[in-house]
Amino acid sequence: MANQLDATVKRVLNKTRVGHFASVDEQGVPHVVPICFVLDSNTIYSLIDEKPKESKDSELGRVRNIRSNESASLVVDYYSEDWSQLFWVQLRGTATLTQPESNIHERIVPKLEEKYPQYTEHNLYARLLITLSVETTVSWGKLRPDRLS
Amino acid sequence: MANQLDATVKRVLNKTRVGHFASVDEQGVPHVVPICFVLDSNTIYSLIDEKPKESKDSELGRVRNIRSNESASLVVDYYSEDWSQLFWVQLRGTATLTQPESNIHERIVPKLEEKYPQYTEHNLYARLLITLSVETTVSWGKLRPDRLS
Repeated sequence: MANQLDATVKRVLNKTRVGHFASVDEQGVPHVVPICFVLDSNTIYSLIDEKPKESKDSELGRVRNIRSNESASLVVDYYSEDWSQLFWVQLRGTATLTQPESNIHERIVPKLEEKYPQYTEHNLYARLLITLSVETTVSWGKLRPDRLS
Repeated sequence: MANQLDATVKRVLNKTRVGHFASVDEQGVPHVVPICFVLDSNTIYSLIDEKPKESKDSELGRVRNIRSNESASLVVDYYSEDWSQLFWVQLRGTATLTQPESNIHERIVPKLEEKYPQYTEHNLYARLLITLSVETTVSWGKLRPDRLS
Protein backbone atom coordinates (compact mmCIF):
# COMPACT_ATOMS: atom_id res chain seq x y z
CA MET A 1 0.00 0.00 0.00
CA ALA A 2 1.33 3.42 -0.96
CA ASN A 3 2.08 5.78 1.89
CA GLN A 4 0.85 9.36 1.95
CA LEU A 5 3.36 11.68 0.33
CA ASP A 6 3.56 15.11 1.85
CA ALA A 7 2.37 18.13 -0.09
CA THR A 8 5.85 19.49 -0.85
CA VAL A 9 7.08 16.13 -2.14
CA LYS A 10 4.01 15.94 -4.36
CA ARG A 11 4.71 19.39 -5.78
CA VAL A 12 8.32 18.39 -6.47
CA LEU A 13 7.17 15.24 -8.25
CA ASN A 14 4.53 17.06 -10.28
CA LYS A 15 7.00 19.73 -11.44
CA THR A 16 9.87 17.36 -12.27
CA ARG A 17 10.14 16.56 -15.99
CA VAL A 18 12.54 13.64 -15.71
CA GLY A 19 13.29 11.28 -12.83
CA HIS A 20 15.78 8.44 -12.50
CA PHE A 21 14.43 4.96 -12.02
CA ALA A 22 16.47 2.12 -10.56
CA SER A 23 15.70 -1.58 -10.69
CA VAL A 24 17.77 -4.69 -9.98
CA ASP A 25 18.49 -7.63 -12.27
CA GLU A 26 18.58 -11.30 -11.33
CA GLN A 27 22.30 -11.09 -10.58
CA GLY A 28 21.75 -8.24 -8.11
CA VAL A 29 23.09 -5.58 -10.49
CA PRO A 30 21.28 -2.24 -10.37
CA HIS A 31 20.09 -0.57 -13.59
CA VAL A 32 19.24 3.13 -13.67
CA VAL A 33 17.65 5.15 -16.48
CA PRO A 34 15.93 8.52 -16.86
CA ILE A 35 12.15 8.28 -17.11
CA CYS A 36 9.14 10.49 -17.63
CA PHE A 37 6.35 9.84 -15.15
CA VAL A 38 3.25 11.13 -13.45
CA LEU A 39 2.17 10.99 -9.85
CA ASP A 40 -1.38 9.91 -9.08
CA SER A 41 -2.69 9.09 -5.61
CA ASN A 42 0.77 8.56 -4.07
CA THR A 43 1.82 6.24 -6.88
CA ILE A 44 4.24 6.81 -9.76
CA TYR A 45 3.31 5.76 -13.31
CA SER A 46 5.67 5.52 -16.27
CA LEU A 47 5.30 4.03 -19.74
CA ILE A 48 7.76 1.77 -21.47
CA ASP A 49 8.99 3.68 -24.45
CA GLU A 50 8.68 2.23 -27.93
CA LYS A 51 10.82 4.62 -29.91
CA PRO A 52 13.74 3.14 -31.85
CA LYS A 53 16.69 2.36 -29.61
CA GLU A 54 20.36 1.83 -30.11
CA SER A 55 20.00 -0.83 -27.50
CA LYS A 56 16.78 -2.80 -27.07
CA ASP A 57 18.34 -4.72 -24.23
CA SER A 58 18.33 -1.91 -21.77
CA GLU A 59 14.66 -1.14 -22.26
CA LEU A 60 13.66 -4.74 -21.93
CA GLY A 61 16.00 -4.97 -18.95
CA ARG A 62 13.81 -2.70 -16.86
CA VAL A 63 10.81 -4.90 -17.52
CA ARG A 64 12.74 -8.13 -16.94
CA ASN A 65 14.14 -6.75 -13.69
CA ILE A 66 10.73 -5.89 -12.29
CA ARG A 67 9.47 -9.37 -13.16
CA SER A 68 12.28 -10.94 -11.11
CA ASN A 69 12.58 -8.31 -8.33
CA GLU A 70 9.72 -5.94 -7.68
CA SER A 71 11.80 -3.53 -5.57
CA ALA A 72 12.48 -0.25 -7.37
CA SER A 73 13.37 3.36 -6.63
CA LEU A 74 12.86 6.72 -8.26
CA VAL A 75 14.87 9.82 -7.47
CA VAL A 76 13.93 13.33 -8.53
CA ASP A 77 16.36 16.15 -7.94
CA TYR A 78 17.29 19.74 -8.57
CA TYR A 79 20.81 20.60 -9.69
CA SER A 80 22.30 24.06 -9.60
CA GLU A 81 25.86 25.33 -9.56
CA ASP A 82 24.87 26.99 -6.29
CA TRP A 83 25.20 23.88 -4.19
CA SER A 84 23.31 25.43 -1.27
CA GLN A 85 20.19 25.01 -3.43
CA LEU A 86 20.51 21.30 -4.21
CA PHE A 87 17.80 18.89 -3.17
CA TRP A 88 16.48 15.47 -4.01
CA VAL A 89 13.70 13.10 -3.07
CA GLN A 90 14.08 9.35 -3.38
CA LEU A 91 11.03 7.09 -3.44
CA ARG A 92 11.37 3.37 -2.83
CA GLY A 93 8.67 0.82 -3.24
CA THR A 94 7.13 -1.99 -5.20
CA ALA A 95 7.00 -1.91 -8.99
CA THR A 96 4.41 -3.75 -11.04
CA LEU A 97 3.81 -4.07 -14.77
CA THR A 98 0.43 -3.50 -16.37
CA GLN A 99 -0.31 -4.79 -19.85
CA PRO A 100 -1.54 -2.36 -22.55
CA GLU A 101 -5.15 -1.17 -22.82
CA SER A 102 -5.91 -1.59 -19.11
CA ASN A 103 -8.27 0.39 -16.91
CA ILE A 104 -5.21 2.01 -15.37
CA HIS A 105 -4.19 3.26 -18.81
CA GLU A 106 -7.64 4.87 -19.12
CA ARG A 107 -6.96 6.89 -15.98
CA ILE A 108 -3.24 7.59 -16.39
CA VAL A 109 -2.68 8.22 -20.12
CA PRO A 110 -4.58 11.55 -20.07
CA LYS A 111 -2.42 12.66 -17.13
CA LEU A 112 0.76 11.72 -19.00
CA GLU A 113 -0.44 13.60 -22.09
CA GLU A 114 -1.26 16.63 -19.98
CA LYS A 115 2.16 16.69 -18.34
CA TYR A 116 4.05 15.83 -21.55
CA PRO A 117 2.49 17.30 -24.72
CA GLN A 118 5.16 15.35 -26.64
CA TYR A 119 3.21 12.18 -25.91
CA THR A 120 0.14 13.21 -27.91
CA GLU A 121 1.74 11.95 -31.14
CA HIS A 122 1.95 8.43 -29.70
CA ASN A 123 -0.53 5.70 -28.85
CA LEU A 124 0.15 5.39 -25.15
CA TYR A 125 -2.64 2.90 -24.56
CA ALA A 126 -0.62 0.31 -26.48
CA ARG A 127 2.33 0.49 -24.10
CA LEU A 128 3.34 -1.46 -21.06
CA LEU A 129 2.92 0.61 -17.90
CA ILE A 130 5.21 0.56 -14.86
CA THR A 131 3.62 1.40 -11.52
CA LEU A 132 5.74 2.26 -8.49
CA SER A 133 3.77 2.02 -5.28
CA VAL A 134 5.75 4.18 -2.86
CA GLU A 135 6.66 2.71 0.52
CA THR A 136 9.57 4.87 1.69
CA THR A 137 10.56 8.46 1.00
CA VAL A 138 14.01 9.90 1.73
CA SER A 139 14.81 13.51 1.01
CA TRP A 140 17.93 15.64 1.13
CA GLY A 141 18.30 19.40 1.11
CA LYS A 142 15.53 21.97 1.31
CA LEU A 143 12.81 20.99 -1.16
CA ARG A 144 11.93 23.97 -3.35
CA PRO A 145 9.37 22.98 -5.98
CA ASP A 146 9.33 26.59 -7.25
CA ARG A 147 12.88 26.12 -8.56
CA LEU A 148 11.78 23.39 -10.95
CA SER A 149 10.91 24.58 -14.42
CA MET B 1 39.35 -4.26 -14.95
CA ALA B 2 37.73 -1.22 -16.51
CA ASN B 3 36.90 -1.43 -20.17
CA GLN B 4 37.87 1.25 -22.67
CA LEU B 5 35.17 3.87 -22.96
CA ASP B 6 34.79 5.38 -26.38
CA ALA B 7 35.74 9.01 -27.00
CA THR B 8 32.15 10.30 -27.27
CA VAL B 9 31.12 8.59 -24.03
CA LYS B 10 34.14 10.13 -22.33
CA ARG B 11 33.18 13.60 -23.57
CA VAL B 12 29.63 13.09 -22.30
CA LEU B 13 30.93 12.02 -18.90
CA ASN B 14 33.39 14.89 -18.67
CA LYS B 15 30.75 17.49 -19.53
CA THR B 16 28.01 16.11 -17.27
CA ARG B 17 27.70 17.97 -13.96
CA VAL B 18 25.49 15.48 -12.15
CA GLY B 19 24.97 11.76 -12.69
CA HIS B 20 22.67 9.29 -10.98
CA PHE B 21 24.25 6.47 -9.03
CA ALA B 22 22.41 3.25 -8.17
CA SER B 23 23.42 0.63 -5.62
CA VAL B 24 21.56 -2.27 -4.02
CA ASP B 25 20.98 -2.96 -0.34
CA GLU B 26 21.14 -6.32 1.43
CA GLN B 27 17.42 -6.90 0.80
CA GLY B 28 17.86 -6.40 -2.95
CA VAL B 29 16.30 -2.93 -2.92
CA PRO B 30 17.91 -0.40 -5.28
CA HIS B 31 18.91 3.05 -4.04
CA VAL B 32 19.53 5.90 -6.47
CA VAL B 33 20.92 9.37 -5.77
CA PRO B 34 22.40 12.24 -7.79
CA ILE B 35 26.18 12.48 -7.52
CA CYS B 36 29.03 14.66 -8.70
CA PHE B 37 31.91 12.69 -10.17
CA VAL B 38 34.98 12.72 -12.36
CA LEU B 39 36.15 10.26 -14.97
CA ASP B 40 39.78 9.18 -14.90
CA SER B 41 41.23 6.34 -16.98
CA ASN B 42 37.86 4.68 -17.68
CA THR B 43 36.88 4.78 -14.03
CA ILE B 44 34.35 6.98 -12.19
CA TYR B 45 35.26 8.62 -8.88
CA SER B 46 32.85 10.29 -6.46
CA LEU B 47 33.21 11.52 -2.90
CA ILE B 48 30.86 10.84 -0.06
CA ASP B 49 29.44 14.17 0.90
CA GLU B 50 29.75 15.45 4.46
CA LYS B 51 27.43 18.41 4.38
CA PRO B 52 24.55 18.42 6.87
CA LYS B 53 21.71 16.17 5.78
CA GLU B 54 18.08 15.88 6.60
CA SER B 55 18.67 12.17 6.42
CA LYS B 56 22.01 10.65 7.34
CA ASP B 57 20.66 7.21 6.59
CA SER B 58 20.56 7.64 2.87
CA GLU B 59 24.16 8.76 2.60
CA LEU B 60 25.40 5.94 4.77
CA GLY B 61 23.14 3.64 2.79
CA ARG B 62 25.21 4.06 -0.35
CA VAL B 63 28.34 3.05 1.56
CA ARG B 64 26.64 0.16 3.31
CA ASN B 65 25.24 -1.09 0.02
CA ILE B 66 28.63 -1.18 -1.68
CA ARG B 67 30.06 -3.09 1.27
CA SER B 68 27.43 -5.80 0.85
CA ASN B 69 27.02 -5.73 -2.96
CA GLU B 70 29.74 -4.22 -5.10
CA SER B 71 27.56 -3.98 -8.22
CA ALA B 72 26.64 -0.40 -9.06
CA SER B 73 25.54 1.73 -12.00
CA LEU B 74 25.79 5.35 -13.04
CA VAL B 75 23.60 6.99 -15.65
CA VAL B 76 24.30 10.36 -17.24
CA ASP B 77 21.72 11.89 -19.51
CA TYR B 78 20.55 14.92 -21.42
CA TYR B 79 16.96 16.07 -21.08
CA SER B 80 15.24 18.48 -23.43
CA GLU B 81 11.61 19.17 -24.22
CA ASP B 82 12.59 18.27 -27.78
CA TRP B 83 12.50 14.53 -27.25
CA SER B 84 14.35 13.84 -30.51
CA GLN B 85 17.44 15.18 -28.69
CA LEU B 86 17.33 12.94 -25.63
CA PHE B 87 20.22 10.65 -24.86
CA TRP B 88 21.74 8.75 -21.96
CA VAL B 89 24.68 6.55 -21.14
CA GLN B 90 24.54 3.95 -18.40
CA LEU B 91 27.72 2.51 -16.92
CA ARG B 92 27.62 -0.67 -14.88
CA GLY B 93 30.48 -2.12 -12.94
CA THR B 94 32.13 -2.77 -9.63
CA ALA B 95 32.18 -0.19 -6.87
CA THR B 96 34.82 -0.01 -4.18
CA LEU B 97 35.34 2.30 -1.21
CA THR B 98 38.63 4.00 -0.48
CA GLN B 99 39.37 5.43 2.94
CA PRO B 100 40.37 9.10 3.29
CA GLU B 101 43.90 10.39 2.63
CA SER B 102 44.78 7.66 0.12
CA ASN B 103 47.07 7.80 -2.90
CA ILE B 104 43.94 7.78 -5.04
CA HIS B 105 42.77 10.94 -3.30
CA GLU B 106 46.09 12.56 -4.23
CA ARG B 107 45.38 11.91 -7.90
CA ILE B 108 41.60 12.48 -7.98
CA VAL B 109 40.92 15.39 -5.63
CA PRO B 110 42.61 17.95 -7.94
CA LYS B 111 40.44 16.67 -10.80
CA LEU B 112 37.28 17.01 -8.72
CA GLU B 113 38.29 20.54 -7.69
CA GLU B 114 38.96 21.44 -11.31
CA LYS B 115 35.58 20.15 -12.49
CA TYR B 116 33.68 21.55 -9.48
CA PRO B 117 35.08 24.86 -8.15
CA GLN B 118 32.49 24.54 -5.36
CA TYR B 119 34.66 21.83 -3.83
CA THR B 120 37.58 24.13 -3.10
CA GLU B 121 35.99 25.24 0.17
CA HIS B 122 36.05 21.67 1.46
CA ASN B 123 38.70 19.23 2.61
CA LEU B 124 38.15 16.48 0.09
CA TYR B 125 41.10 14.41 1.25
CA ALA B 126 39.18 13.66 4.47
CA ARG B 127 36.30 12.02 2.63
CA LEU B 128 35.49 8.46 1.71
CA LEU B 129 35.86 7.91 -2.05
CA ILE B 130 33.65 5.69 -4.21
CA THR B 131 35.27 4.19 -7.29
CA LEU B 132 33.18 2.66 -10.07
CA SER B 133 35.23 0.46 -12.34
CA VAL B 134 33.17 0.31 -15.52
CA GLU B 135 32.46 -3.09 -17.02
CA THR B 136 29.44 -2.47 -19.27
CA THR B 137 28.22 0.59 -21.13
CA VAL B 138 24.70 0.95 -22.55
CA SER B 139 23.65 4.05 -24.42
CA TRP B 140 20.40 5.34 -25.86
CA GLY B 141 19.80 8.10 -28.37
CA LYS B 142 22.40 10.06 -30.29
CA LEU B 143 25.11 11.17 -27.87
CA ARG B 144 25.73 14.90 -28.26
CA PRO B 145 28.29 16.10 -25.70
CA ASP B 146 28.08 19.61 -27.19
CA ARG B 147 24.54 19.92 -25.81
CA LEU B 148 25.75 19.58 -22.22
CA SER B 149 26.48 22.86 -20.51
